[in-house]
Amino acid sequence: MKQGELDMTTLPDELDLLILPRWIVPVVPSGIVLEHHALAVHQGRIIALLPAAQTNELNVRERRELPDHLVIPGLINAHGHAAMSLLRGLADDLPLMTWLTDHIWPAEGRWVNADFVRLGTDLAIAEMLRGGTTCFADMYFHPEVAAAAAMDAGIRAQLAFPVIDNPIPGARDATEAIAKGLKLHDETRHNELISVAFGPHAPYTVGDETLTRVRTLADELDLPIHMHIHETAFEVEESVRLTGMRPLQRLQKLGLLSPRLQAVHVTQINDQDLALLSEHGVQVIHCPESNMKLASGAMPVQRLLGAQVNVALGTDGAASNNDLDMLGEMRSAAFLAKLTAGDPTALDAHAALHMATLAGARALGLAEETGSLEVGKAADITAIDFSGLAQQPVYEPVSQLLYTCSAAQVSDVWVAGKQKLRDGKLCSLDTGPILQQASALATRIRQGDTHES
Amino acid sequence: MKQGELDMTTLPDELDLLILPRWIVPVVPSGIVLEHHALAVHQGRIIALLPAAQTNELNVRERRELPDHLVIPGLINAHGHAAMSLLRGLADDLPLMTWLTDHIWPAEGRWVNADFVRLGTDLAIAEMLRGGTTCFADMYFHPEVAAAAAMDAGIRAQLAFPVIDNPIPGARDATEAIAKGLKLHDETRHNELISVAFGPHAPYTVGDETLTRVRTLADELDLPIHMHIHETAFEVEESVRLTGMRPLQRLQKLGLLSPRLQAVHVTQINDQDLALLSEHGVQVIHCPESNMKLASGAMPVQRLLGAQVNVALGTDGAASNNDLDMLGEMRSAAFLAKLTAGDPTALDAHAALHMATLAGARALGLAEETGSLEVGKAADITAIDFSGLAQQPVYEPVSQLLYTCSAAQVSDVWVAGKQKLRDGKLCSLDTGPILQQASALATRIRQGDTHES
Repeated sequence: MKQGELDMTTLPDELDLLILPRWIVPVVPSGIVLEHHALAVHQGRIIALLPAAQTNELNVRERRELPDHLVIPGLINAHGHAAMSLLRGLADDLPLMTWLTDHIWPAEGRWVNADFVRLGTDLAIAEMLRGGTTCFADMYFHPEVAAAAAMDAGIRAQLAFPVIDNPIPGARDATEAIAKGLKLHDETRHNELISVAFGPHAPYTVGDETLTRVRTLADELDLPIHMHIHETAFEVEESVRLTGMRPLQRLQKLGLLSPRLQAVHVTQINDQDLALLSEHGVQVIHCPESNMKLASGAMPVQRLLGAQVNVALGTDGAASNNDLDMLGEMRSAAFLAKLTAGDPTALDAHAALHMATLAGARALGLAEETGSLEVGKAADITAIDFSGLAQQPVYEPVSQLLYTCSAAQVSDVWVAGKQKLRDGKLCSLDTGPILQQASALATRIRQGDTHES
Repeated sequence: MKQGELDMTTLPDELDLLILPRWIVPVVPSGIVLEHHALAVHQGRIIALLPAAQTNELNVRERRELPDHLVIPGLINAHGHAAMSLLRGLADDLPLMTWLTDHIWPAEGRWVNADFVRLGTDLAIAEMLRGGTTCFADMYFHPEVAAAAAMDAGIRAQLAFPVIDNPIPGARDATEAIAKGLKLHDETRHNELISVAFGPHAPYTVGDETLTRVRTLADELDLPIHMHIHETAFEVEESVRLTGMRPLQRLQKLGLLSPRLQAVHVTQINDQDLALLSEHGVQVIHCPESNMKLASGAMPVQRLLGAQVNVALGTDGAASNNDLDMLGEMRSAAFLAKLTAGDPTALDAHAALHMATLAGARALGLAEETGSLEVGKAADITAIDFSGLAQQPVYEPVSQLLYTCSAAQVSDVWVAGKQKLRDGKLCSLDTGPILQQASALATRIRQGDTHES
C-alpha cells in the first residue's frame, strides 16, 4: 500500500531523523502494514510517513536503516507499580492474601521510602525502555519521586497518586495524599511527558466520602482516576455483602463512572457491569498475566470490545507478573482472549497491537499525542529486530510480532524523537549502579523477609 | 544445602568439564537450589555435583565459570512438528478448520518433501538449542530426514513416524509408513541420541485395524506411541457420535492405553477419562500455548497431577505456537494451570521446571538418561544468564526462571557433554544459510498461498 506523495515544500531544510525499516505498522489506519516506507521525525514529532524510494533527496541529520525490522508505535503500559520491581519474585505461587499479608505488605511497610521508589522506578524504567515501552501508567507511593525518575529518563508517564483511607508511605491520610498529589500535578503541568491522575486504590480500601472528594476534584481539574476494580470474585462478593451493591454499581452511585475513570483488572463482570462500563465510556485496563498468576480470573475481552469499551493493556507490577515485557503481555492477552471466548479469531494480531498502543493512549487521555504513527503526533517509536531464529521466516509481520517477540527482540526506541535504545542498548541510562544497588537491597530484604516469616 | 564430600579417588586424572554457576537446580532431589556448587562432566556424563570450594585442586580440561547463571537440566520439548517452523505465522488467528483446510494442508501438500523437512528441522533445532532445549519429540513427515538433522546437530530426539490411513508425504499408506518407520528404528537403534516411536496421528484419522497393528508392534518392539488425543471438544463429540465411545474409551478397548502411550493435548477430560489415564499410567503431554491459540481448551493439569499422571510439556509446531521457546511455554503452563484450577499455588516454579525436564524424560522413556542433573546421567545441561534487567534482583532463582526468562536469557547448552551453545551463540550450526533458504522458500510459499486462497 502506498501513502500519498510527499509535499517537499512542507519539510524543514534539514530533517532530524529518518527511520527506514523493512515494515511499518502505524496502527492508524487500522490493520495496514507498510513495506519499504520511511518515518520522518523532526523536533520530536512525526512529520511524514512516505515511501522509502522518495527519501533519497532528503537532507537528513540521521538516517537510521533497519533492514530486518518492524517499526510500531511505542508500547503503552497502562498499569503498573514500577518501584515494586525491587520485590520481583520475593514470594510467588502463593494465595493472594498470604502473598500480601505475609510478604508484600510487611516488606513495603519496612522498606518503602523515597530512595526505594527512586531505585525501583529507575530499574523498571530501564526494563520498560529496553522492551519497547515509551509510556507507562504508574500507581505507587511517593509518586513525586517516580515522576522525577521518569523526567530524568525522558519516558512518558502517567503518575496516579495513591489515595487510601489509611496511612501510607508518604502520606498520613487521604487528605494529605490528595494534597501532595495535586501539588505534583501543579508542578508537572507544563511537562510534556508527565501527567498526573488520582489513584484511589480500590473500592474496598476507599470509603464513599473520599471517593466523592476524588470525583469532585477530578471533574474540576479534568484529571483521570486510576483504580483497581473488580479484580477478584471475592472483592465483588464482599461489596455485595457489605453495601448491597457490586463495586461498579457503588461507583456509579458515587458518580465515578465516566471516560476519565481507568478501571484496572475487571476480571469479574456480569451483563449489568458490562452495560455500565459501556454506557459511561469507562476506560478498561487489562493485566492478563497478573490475573492468571494470582488466579484472579480472566477478563472477557471480546465481550468488552464487542460493547465498544476501550481496553488497554498493562503488565501490573513486577511483584505479580514478574516482568514488564509488553510484547509478552500482548501474547498472553491474545492467548487468554481466545481461550476465554472459545474462539481462535478473538484478539487477532492487529487487535492485540492496538490494545498495547492506541487503546493505551486513549485510556490515559493521551491519544492526541501518542499511540499511533500519525503525522503530528509525538515520535514515540519502537523497532523490533526480526532477524532472529524464532522470527524467521516472516509471512505476516504483525503475527510474528505477537506470537514470537519479547523484549529481547526490541532494538531501537525513541520517546518524543529522542533515542532511548539503540541496537538493544540503553542510550543514556547507566544500569550498572541500578542493578548493583537493587541486588544489595534485595539481599537485605530477603534476610528480613526470611527472618520475619 | 550441601552435597556429600567428594571421593577424589573416583575422579579421572583430568576431568573434561567443570561448570561453576551461581545456582544449580538439579530437579532431583526435588525442590532444591544449590548455591556455589559445581557440576563435573566427563565423557559425556555427569560424574559429580559438589561444592565449588572443593574444586580448586581438580585437574580440569575446561572450567566454565557462570557467575550470574542458573544451571538446570536441558529442557525437553515433548511434542512438536519441527519442520513446520517453515510455516510459522503463515495463517494465524483463524478457526482451526479454516487454518488447516485452507492454509496448512494445501501448503503441506504442495511444498513438503525431504528438502523441506531437512531445512525446517534444521531451523527448528537451531531455535531449540538457542532456547535451552536438549531433547525434542518430533512428529512429522520424512522422519528419517529429521533424524539425520538431529544426528548432525547432536541434539537428543524422539522421532515419531506418522501413521495415518491416507497417503502422506513419504508414504502411500499406513503399511508403508510403518515399514519405513521400523526401518528407521532399526537403523538408529545404536545411536545414543535418537529414539523412534509410532506416531498414529489422532483417533479420528486412524482406524481400528491400523491402531491394533500399531499396538501389537509397539508391544513387541517395546516402542512408545505418540498421538494427539482429546485435543478439542469437537473431536470427542464426533467420536461419541460415530463410535458411541469417547476416544480414550476406544483406545482402551483397542489396548493402546499403557505407559508407552504419549497422549498429546488432552484438553477435554471427564472423570472417567482421568481414571483411564491414571490407571493405565499413560504419559500426558501438555501444549498450553497451542491449546490457547487455537482455542482448543485448557488441560486440567492440577487434576492430572493429583491423580499421579506424569505430565510433560511441549511447544507443538511453530505453525501453531509460533515459537519453540520452552521457557516461555513453562510460564504459559503455570499461568494457565493457576487460572484453570482457580488456585495461585497450582504448578509452582519447581513443578513447572519438573514438567519441562524430568517429566518430559519420563514421558519419552528416557528418564534413565536425561531430565535431571544426577550423577551417571548424560550431561544434558542448560545455563540461563540472570544478569539482565528483567531478572534482577533475585530472591528465588526458580521463580525468576519461570516468570521472567525466555530463550533470549539462555547462555550455554550442552548435550551429552558436548557444548552446543556458548554465550548465546550456537557453537557448530551455521544459521546463515538456513535463514536465507527459509526466507527464500517462504517467499515462494506466500505467493502460492495468496494465489490459491
